[in-house]
Parts: sequence; structure tokens; C-alpha cells
Amino acid sequence: MDLAIIGSGPAALTAAIYAARAGVKTEVFEKAKIGGALTEIDRIENYPGFVGAGADLAENLKKQANEAGAKISYGTCEKIAAGETGLEIIIDGEPVATRAVLVATGSEPKTLELDTTSPISYCAICDAPLYKGKNIAVIGGGNSAVQEALYLSEIVNHIVLYSHSGLKADAVLVDKIKAAGNIEIHENAMPTKAELDALDGVFVFIGKRPATTFLPSDLLDEKGYIKTRDYAAAPGIFAAGDVRSGSTKQAITAAADGAAAALAAVEYLKK
Amino acid sequence: MDLAIIGSGPAALTAAIYAARAGVKTEVFEKAKIGGALTEIDRIENYPGFVGAGADLAENLKKQANEAGAKISYGTCEKIAAGETGLEIIIDGEPVATRAVLVATGSEPKTLELDTTSPISYCAICDAPLYKGKNIAVIGGGNSAVQEALYLSEIVNHIVLYSHSGLKADAVLVDKIKAAGNIEIHENAMPTKAELDALDGVFVFIGKRPATTFLPSDLLDEKGYIKTRDYAAAPGIFAAGDVRSGSTKQAITAAADGAAAALAAVEYLKK
Repeated sequence: MDLAIIGSGPAALTAAIYAARAGVKTEVFEKAKIGGALTEIDRIENYPGFVGAGADLAENLKKQANEAGAKISYGTCEKIAAGETGLEIIIDGEPVATRAVLVATGSEPKTLELDTTSPISYCAICDAPLYKGKNIAVIGGGNSAVQEALYLSEIVNHIVLYSHSGLKADAVLVDKIKAAGNIEIHENAMPTKAELDALDGVFVFIGKRPATTFLPSDLLDEKGYIKTRDYAAAPGIFAAGDVRSGSTKQAITAAADGAAAALAAVEYLKK
Repeated sequence: MDLAIIGSGPAALTAAIYAARAGVKTEVFEKAKIGGALTEIDRIENYPGFVGAGADLAENLKKQANEAGAKISYGTCEKIAAGETGLEIIIDGEPVATRAVLVATGSEPKTLELDTTSPISYCAICDAPLYKGKNIAVIGGGNSAVQEALYLSEIVNHIVLYSHSGLKADAVLVDKIKAAGNIEIHENAMPTKAELDALDGVFVFIGKRPATTFLPSDLLDEKGYIKTRDYAAAPGIFAAGDVRSGSTKQAITAAADGAAAALAAVEYLKK
């Protein structure tokens, strides 16, 4: 194999489209869901050229990558190391030889230690059906917290939204939650144990952290993101999307990052 | 107005989506066709999440920008200067006050001085209908030349493709023109006057140059692209997409550039 791509979000699948179209033998390895974080987004409105469910955008990307000639497989990458020639990656315990690797594993939700007897969730799409007609708390004040609260407000009875440092979401989104009718907003406030225990569940959306625990720490910055120069972290090892230090964390910028990193990998493989 | 966006390609319309969603009063000014260079692309296959005619992608982007609240107008920007407060731009001879400007005018085809009596074209979609069943030359060897040759091969009778420095297009595209059946490829060769005169027309696709003649030269690099730092060329003046020095010239990377530049402009306007 020429290029192993780890992850299958917009950065990974765009990289697969670009690399495969350039004639590079490309395989994508995904540990959980094809589409990555996209599959957890109910509705995307700010991805230029596509409006709809994140899962449908993921499906489009997967189809394009397949049609370009990339192979898409399930498997967890546990390690990247130097091989006899090129690199060796460990997928589900098995060594796989490749000339180059592109890491686009994105990020996973930051967790919060909360003192409550109520159940805690980090994924609205996954767990919303459990709270039909019930009363919940949402914690967070950024775009994703507000978007998830809007999604949940259509399903649950009532939401109390706690934003530790004020609402920082886009103005259009803030207008929407104010107009929703069943979302009570507490800015600059965190809930007490008694307040949370009185509700049926708590959804936490306080940001993400990079999915890079399988990588050596010398490739990472102090927050765990992959440090790159022209998309390369080390010879033959490239990174793109949310996992790359300094990237803008949007679906569209991740996709573009994947394209640019793939072009860098293609150049590397030509040598 | 808070933000005037000059141009209406993927960078400009994505910037409009992002700025308007952030509550910024945004107007897009386009001098020719909404969608810019997209409207001249018959079929896009490497824009993640969308496969089809460039004009249809442009229409999606325009609709999204409108729905986000951006205004889209026709008008040619002739100058950007300091105003009494903020900036003043000249649109079709009339001064328009704005707090910030985002230039996303993209690029236009490089022209070639050819000694021939045959007509010369720089746009396949625009002029292909004139050559139905006829014999033409295509000059160029990059992705766009090969893509345009493929498009033209479905309409014309026969194509002679001259590539000055060899075919540099993606492998999948090169395979396609080799399989087309009516494209004769001359690598590392340029046509003589006699060869061109014997044909019905000549299409030239040898790259682009930035559309920046309305800007002061101190904002531009030696090739005419806009120099930026964190997407800003000067206080209140931002640039995104193909027109920005150092950008990767792909529809997807231009769109992402528009998103990131709009976020930078929104930050600037908050101050």
C-alpha cells in the first residue's frame, strides 16, 4: 500500500479522494463509524454546497472516495512505526506495511466530572431518543452546544442550558435557541448537584480533544494535536483536519486540509 | 455595511455564508457570473460532498449564502480606499461605505500569443457549441487542460492536444484522455502556425493569473496575488481563495479559505 489514511471524517475521506485520483494506492481505516464526527451532526448548514444530515454528507464522501478508487476498511490503528522499508502500522493487532500514513482521526468530546445521579451523555443524536418528553440539562455555550440544544429541544420537554462563560455561538444560532420556547438559558453559570439530580439527564458539549493517544508524544503539541510543517509530522507521516495543530475546526476546513495534505503525501510518494 | 465581499466563487460565497451566520451585515459584489470560475466547469468530481456541474454547485452556494442572510449584487469593484470611517469601495463608479472588505476575485485565464488564423478560446463551456463535429487543438497539460479536453472530446470530432512540458494532470484524468479515442496527444511539443491554421479552432488552458488589477501593488506579491497574514492584507482588508498568495488552487480549498477569512473578518469587526 502507498498511503494508509487513519480516520474517516471529512479530512480523511477528502484525502482519500485526492490521493486515489492521483493514482496512489490508498486505504482508509476507521475504528467506529464511517464519516467520523459528521455522523453525529443532525443538520449541517455551513458546509458550502451541502445542506442536510451529517450522515448523508458522510455517505456522499464515502461514495466519492470509493469511486476514485480508495479502499475503505474498518480497523483501529494502534501504532505507527518505521518498517523494513517505509512504515509499519498496527491495525487491530496486525502489522500492515505502507509507504506513507495520513492521520485524520479528528477529535473526541471532552468529558466533565459532574457530581450528579443523573446520566451524562456526550452525543445528542445517539442518546436523544432516551429523553423523549423528559427534562434535561445541556452544558456548554459554543456552536456545537447550541446546535445540539436546538436538536434536543424538538425531542425533549424542557432544557436548562448552562453556559460557564456565556454564549459564544453564532448570532443566528443564539437567536434560534432564544426563540425555541423550551430552552431556559443560564449564562455564566454552572448547575448545582441538586439542580442536575432533579433532571432526567445531562448532555455535555464543552469542546473536543484530539484522538492521538496511539501516537508518540514527540509528534504532538502540549494539547495533544499533531504538529506539522506543510502537513508532514515526520517523514512519510502526514496529518489533516481537526487533529492537526493549528487547524480551523470546521467540516469545510477539515475537508480542505485533507485535500492539501493528500497533495503533500502524493508529492512525497513521487520521490 | 459591515463586510463587502468582492467576487462570487466558492471562496466568496463560503465567506458570505460564514459572515452572515455570525450576524455580520454582508453584501457580495460580482462583476460577471455568480459562481465565478465554477460556472465554467462542466463536471466537478473532486469537491467533497458534491459531484456534478460547476454551475449547480454555484447555485447551491448562492442559495446557502442568501438563506444565511447575505445580499448578492452585480457590480464591478474598481477601487478600495480609506473612507471617513472604515473603508470606501468604488462599485461601478459609485462610492460604497463598508467597515471591512474581503477580496475573493479568484483568477482569470492566462492568455497566449499564438500566430494563427484560427480563433482562440479560453473557455470550453462557453465556446464548445461553436465546434460541434469540428477539429480543434487544445494547448496545456495540467488538470484543467485535460478536463476541458475530455469535455470537448464529447462535442468536437477530433482534438490534437499539445502539452509544452508533458502531461501533469492526475493519473485518472490522463487515463481518461488516453481512452477517449479522438484525442491525439503531443507531449513536450508546441504546434506550428501551419498545424493550427489547418484546424477549426484553438483552446488554451495554460493556467490562471490573479484578478487583482483594481488593487494597489503594495498589497500584491510579484505574481500579483494578494499577500496576507492571518487572511488580512491590510487593516479591514481580507483575502481568500485563488487570489490569495500561497493558497492551494482547488474549489474545496478556496471554500475553506473563505470560511477562515470570514472568521478573521468577524473577529476584526468585533473590535
